[in-house]
Amino acid sequence: MSFRHRHLLGIEPLAPTDISAILDRAETYVDLSRSDSKHSDLLAGMTQINMFFENSTRTQASFELAGKRLGADVMNMAMQASSIKKGETLIDTALTLNAMQPDLLVVRHPNSGAVDLLAQKVHCAVLNAGDGRHEHPTQALLDALTIRRAKGRLHRLSIAICGDIAHSRVARSNILALTKMENRVRLIGPPTLLPAGIGEFGVEVFHDMHEGLEDVDVVMMLRLQRERMDGGFIPSEREYYHRYGLDADKLSRAKSDAIVMHPGPMNRGVEIDGTLADDINRSVIQDQVEMGVAVRMAAMDLLAHNLRERRAA
Amino acid sequence: MSFRHRHLLGIEPLAPTDISAILDRAETYVDLSRSDSKHSDLLAGMTQINMFFENSTRTQASFELAGKRLGADVMNMAMQASSIKKGETLIDTALTLNAMQPDLLVVRHPNSGAVDLLAQKVHCAVLNAGDGRHEHPTQALLDALTIRRAKGRLHRLSIAICGDIAHSRVARSNILALTKMENRVRLIGPPTLLPAGIGEFGVEVFHDMHEGLEDVDVVMMLRLQRERMDGGFIPSEREYYHRYGLDADKLSRAKSDAIVMHPGPMNRGVEIDGTLADDINRSVIQDQVEMGVAVRMAAMDLLAHNLRERRAA
Amino acid sequence: MSFRHRHLLGIEPLAPTDISAILDRAETYVDLSRSDSKHSDLLAGMTQINMFFENSTRTQASFELAGKRLGADVMNMAMQASSIKKGETLIDTALTLNAMQPDLLVVRHPNSGAVDLLAQKVHCAVLNAGDGRHEHPTQALLDALTIRRAKGRLHRLSIAICGDIAHSRVARSNILALTKMENRVRLIGPPTLLPAGIGEFGVEVFHDMHEGLEDVDVVMMLRLQRERMDGGFIPSEREYYHRYGLDADKLSRAKSDAIVMHPGPMNRGVEIDGTLADDINRSVIQDQVEMGVAVRMAAMDLLAHNLRERRAA
Repeated sequence: MSFRHRHLLGIEPLAPTDISAILDRAETYVDLSRSDSKHSDLLAGMTQINMFFENSTRTQASFELAGKRLGADVMNMAMQASSIKKGETLIDTALTLNAMQPDLLVVRHPNSGAVDLLAQKVHCAVLNAGDGRHEHPTQALLDALTIRRAKGRLHRLSIAICGDIAHSRVARSNILALTKMENRVRLIGPPTLLPAGIGEFGVEVFHDMHEGLEDVDVVMMLRLQRERMDGGFIPSEREYYHRYGLDADKLSRAKSDAIVMHPGPMNRGVEIDGTLADDINRSVIQDQVEMGVAVRMAAMDLLAHNLRERRAA
Repeated sequence: MSFRHRHLLGIEPLAPTDISAILDRAETYVDLSRSDSKHSDLLAGMTQINMFFENSTRTQASFELAGKRLGADVMNMAMQASSIKKGETLIDTALTLNAMQPDLLVVRHPNSGAVDLLAQKVHCAVLNAGDGRHEHPTQALLDALTIRRAKGRLHRLSIAICGDIAHSRVARSNILALTKMENRVRLIGPPTLLPAGIGEFGVEVFHDMHEGLEDVDVVMMLRLQRERMDGGFIPSEREYYHRYGLDADKLSRAKSDAIVMHPGPMNRGVEIDGTLADDINRSVIQDQVEMGVAVRMAAMDLLAHNLRERRAA
Repeated sequence: MSFRHRHLLGIEPLAPTDISAILDRAETYVDLSRSDSKHSDLLAGMTQINMFFENSTRTQASFELAGKRLGADVMNMAMQASSIKKGETLIDTALTLNAMQPDLLVVRHPNSGAVDLLAQKVHCAVLNAGDGRHEHPTQALLDALTIRRAKGRLHRLSIAICGDIAHSRVARSNILALTKMENRVRLIGPPTLLPAGIGEFGVEVFHDMHEGLEDVDVVMMLRLQRERMDGGFIPSEREYYHRYGLDADKLSRAKSDAIVMHPGPMNRGVEIDGTLADDINRSVIQDQVEMGVAVRMAAMDLLAHNLRERRAA
């Protein structure tokens, strides 16, 4: 097993072999979760704590199911906004939880870098479930697994990431993962929703969907992150859909077997046409959700293994 | 085993033998829950998700305990009102959960018919935990089990359902269950709280408690559903208690061994006299709560059995 | 085993041998929680319900982990303020839960005495997780275990409890526990934050920190309970820190190996200097959190044992 990390804080620190190790392990959990008895005892006796400083019903549910299916004792902590006014308090919260001897800590936080900071203060393995505009590594991994299963490989593909890239940690983690695996990544969006200095990531940038989708294998739509747009240009939904929403016409520029992805929850008629989202010949949106549980199981499996080895050393 | 259903969406689709099958199975779970070790492994490895779009502390707790005592991995989803503004979103939520591969989905929803709609979109077994004014089948089943245990049978009894019948899915499911089992059902309430066209259910209607309770075996009180009364007549609590609240005087018209029921939570002094509610010679209100866990265990047991058979086929 | 109680409602009813029995048992759970497999099957098949009528993320988490590590089925009930307007309703809630056949009921309530009242209505073992200004026994027990481990004994120590004593159930339970174990307890705080008639507890009272901390073995700081100060003197944080906040200067009056405690969550710079709180040579604040899980496991273990014996009798 090549995966030697203590935490899963982002895609950035991972080597391509790390990514492959997680995806290979996840395949076994796809099968397990489809069976009647979705249970392993791999994490039996271990404690997993989910700390979500931002609400996210679906990501929290995915981590909770992943831990329970591995046999862990899973505890959700409702972290109210009020308890994180001071940076100081985040550390105190981390130290308090650490004293309760968890083995796995899953953290979502509105501030970029908060999860890295927290990981330095605790003894257990930390999984980043999304921090500010920084990273959302399990989302990129589930997207990678979905692509690999749909296309039969995860390299030399042409992949378009479309929409509100500037505010998206999903986009950032995906760009890192997909370029590491030697794919060609295109970003498509209005200039106001593309981050500055994006060129350095080795990606191509387009402002026109018809142009950007030309011959791609994968069309990855993003969610409009209105709640993260502080000031600046906010497009109308109608205008946005007209120019950047995915519909059959725009998709016709992509390869005929191109797949359509969305991290959810979708704004139908804004980011994507509802009929297209439901077209099981093109859309792999439900597969993404299913792969989410599997890659989270895989990541926790690998981290728990390393934790046990470190403790035994 | 005669129970062949895929879901438990209501009492309406059930045959009398289905009802008896659930109640018979529930008897074993009454005994199990009274023991020190309240645990079976019947649902071990299975995933139960509770989706409550309406708050209901006691019903959710009952389903949660039922699943945990059967060994399932149980997950509660906090469904905020904000995520269900569009009907479309309910389907997307259902599809997302379905992709996480649950085996049992327990749903409460403020809209009549929403749970049926959702059941058409998922692969797992769905249990209706109350939808709008439509059905609340597990409540009717726990009431049936309570009556059967108290009276020794569940047929040829005279049963009065009293109070706010128009707004009550509890009343609707109970009327269906009790008439299917060949009991005589009387409805007692003010004309404004009785639904139109009630005659077609084969029940007798009374507007006077003294008259309606004459010689009944069972007095089933309902909760005043003020939150569902949009416009129209809303009685004062004092006036309501005077005319329709159950007290010793009104109860004296019933058989001398008549039992008193209430689905809870009670408004003491509005729907029922507090002393009467606590009288263990007449009131079976605590038994109803206990039977609730048992019938939910039974229903999940039977549905999981059918799910496994369907998957193996 | 000397512990014969049915409930853990407070420190007041406990004998010194009861306290020692819980602390001795807790030692085994400290070791268990530090291992990779933090799991026992002692409560397997038993049901633990946590009813928190006041929010307390850390205490609830500690009880939840304690139960899960003992193998119980644990259920958290979100008790909204709205459901406890009438005292009557608390009893109905208790009776409802009782009918669901829990084995262990953990209750926090804003009213002093509410947990005792509730314990009279149910068949299971009840653990008080804090009631009004009355008692918080597991906090006193975890403090006792922390002291015993740091000092090598739990008697003939000089212990200062400092700050807002009037509003603190933590202080009250600690005074009871520490005097029962034959320690010398000093209370230090402004006259407005000391309860009337405190002399009868057999403690010494000081209004000056430098004087009160002279030669003590243990400095136990309290949280300012602003939310419980209805009217009366509320000190400014700056003024309070100047006179009663613990800093290196004030601590220099204590013994050179005196330990520093705080029940959390801390207001750094108000009750205690942040650097001092983090000084692992003096502060045992993280140990207190760790001991919290262990004493709760021990208390539930002993109460479950007694419950099983009572049922078998």
